[in-house]
Amino acid sequence: MKIETVKWVNGKIRLIDQTLLPHKLSYVMCRDIKTLWQAIRSLKVRGAPAIGIAAGFGVALGAKLSNARSPKNLEKDVNKVISYLATARPTAVNLFWALERMKRILLANKAKSVSGIKKALLKEAMDILKEDRSMCREMASFGSKLIKKGDTVLTICNAGALATADYGTALGVFYKARSQAKKIKVYSCETRPLLQGARLTTWELMMSGVDVTLICDSMAATLMQKKKIDKIFVGADRIARNGDAANKIGTYSLAVLARYHKIPFYVVAPSSTFDFSLKSGLYIPIEERPGCEVRRALGKRIAPDKVKVYNPAFDVTPNKLITGIVTEKGIFRKPYTETLKKLKSKVCA
Amino acid sequence: MKIETVKWVNGKIRLIDQTLLPHKLSYVMCRDIKTLWQAIRSLKVRGAPAIGIAAGFGVALGAKLSNARSPKNLEKDVNKVISYLATARPTAVNLFWALERMKRILLANKAKSVSGIKKALLKEAMDILKEDRSMCREMASFGSKLIKKGDTVLTICNAGALATADYGTALGVFYKARSQAKKIKVYSCETRPLLQGARLTTWELMMSGVDVTLICDSMAATLMQKKKIDKIFVGADRIARNGDAANKIGTYSLAVLARYHKIPFYVVAPSSTFDFSLKSGLYIPIEERPGCEVRRALGKRIAPDKVKVYNPAFDVTPNKLITGIVTEKGIFRKPYTETLKKLKSKVCA
Repeated sequence: MKIETVKWVNGKIRLIDQTLLPHKLSYVMCRDIKTLWQAIRSLKVRGAPAIGIAAGFGVALGAKLSNARSPKNLEKDVNKVISYLATARPTAVNLFWALERMKRILLANKAKSVSGIKKALLKEAMDILKEDRSMCREMASFGSKLIKKGDTVLTICNAGALATADYGTALGVFYKARSQAKKIKVYSCETRPLLQGARLTTWELMMSGVDVTLICDSMAATLMQKKKIDKIFVGADRIARNGDAANKIGTYSLAVLARYHKIPFYVVAPSSTFDFSLKSGLYIPIEERPGCEVRRALGKRIAPDKVKVYNPAFDVTPNKLITGIVTEKGIFRKPYTETLKKLKSKVCA
Repeated sequence: MKIETVKWVNGKIRLIDQTLLPHKLSYVMCRDIKTLWQAIRSLKVRGAPAIGIAAGFGVALGAKLSNARSPKNLEKDVNKVISYLATARPTAVNLFWALERMKRILLANKAKSVSGIKKALLKEAMDILKEDRSMCREMASFGSKLIKKGDTVLTICNAGALATADYGTALGVFYKARSQAKKIKVYSCETRPLLQGARLTTWELMMSGVDVTLICDSMAATLMQKKKIDKIFVGADRIARNGDAANKIGTYSLAVLARYHKIPFYVVAPSSTFDFSLKSGLYIPIEERPGCEVRRALGKRIAPDKVKVYNPAFDVTPNKLITGIVTEKGIFRKPYTETLKKLKSKVCA
């Protein structure tokens, strides 16, 4: 994949500005933490794994920018950065997972010198990125086994290269299937209100030569009714230990429709997206975003300015509607409360 | 209702240009048939009943504009207009119903003078409008009995004053319920791609003081999951004699979601929307519209210019998912193949 969504460049964090795609491929350079925070909040960088990676680099950048002369003062500065970045967005757990990981490194290295701590933090952030890369490949390998030659698949939002450090999660499965010469056809839900499907997924897939057709979110049902969809693959922003999965708003709708039409529904996510502390999806905090995102489409006003709006950014698909969860450690199936214990033991060793 | 969607004004057809709402309330004057045809095709006038009314006036206008000096030549001219207007859009049967009705008047009056025929056609077009007005009121009376005080209802597209000569179909039910002091709350699906829900339904309801909240189409499921929706009311563009109902794309999705969440799902439509010649919804022609409607949102580009698009304007909800069909002759319920025979006998006498 030539797309480099998040990159550490000369001591700064370089992000693809995803709000400008597909019109323009341009980058935002984060030289300070506030710029990064705003980039996360405004979805310049988005996608649960990419947010985690960006946050890891954010902590490394925070350390780098600190003028502290003692390890203790550096620790204080870095902890402030960690707390601040944790407020950028509430739902994707990869953000907190990465910050937690950076915090552990901070603790483990507090006996080192100021520059030693800074180095250790940057190394950890780099590791998060590298690990995400290999997780993408592993998920894709497992997931592509679910795809038959000639399958037509459906996805929502962007769970691709723009959401990760490599291949993507759900889209990674498609890329891998394609590399195996399983000719597939992809329908991409446009994903209102912020149109990640229309803007990002179509762009990525077209660039990679994958056959993609754009639909409005409301058109998925009629395709299923006409038996045009063989399988559905989506990403996730947070998965509870019982398998309930939060993902972009509209995902739950697809899961119910899939059940009604007897279509397999798969979630693809690395272990960093699991929140084993949560018993069920009921406890996943769901971000509500400003009404103007719905009243407008990429800045164009499409509704009365004063109309009330409900704008949840995510929904929760209950485990019973999920056929399988594809992770870098394999594919997990019902009963999730049992099977995901094995995942936990593998990754929380 | 102060909204006059279609009106005969000084020998011309005046339409609210619905493509400009909610930004601007302005009118298009149809002085010739081509302008009317284009207004129908481009959704300046839309909504099955309103299309029927506009088509009726179109035939009257065609007669008025004819230079024929003999009844026979006038008949030829008018028949040409009828055939031409029938090509404007394929799905809403009210268009064909109104044209058929005008054709019958033409036949029944062919012994009259040229001016006598013209008068008879204009009177019939006026009657279509007047009848639609009273049908709206009657549907609203029946439908409002389904609504309890404090209900929260969901609708899609615009089945209101802008789709009819009066109150609307689904929205008529809400207006009536409100006039009965049943405080209701309405969620309006934005209705991609052409955003009739965001642009027209919110505008109408706000103007009438009905509590309305706008959502993206993909958000309906999460509201149902949270038990926030008591009932769903939608309009229709064509209903087969078994009760299968074509309506704006996204309706079928809502019907499946309603079934899954055990929420009553009602279709509101006048008898002019029934096509008793069709055994089932399988035979309803579904209009596919240009991809640019999806690649853009009100002119703003939101996707790669060359991405493939699937853009059906309607879908078909099978009768088994419909709790009841509200008409001006009462509410019909399963088994529709039986009960709708009664409707047919009432209106096709």
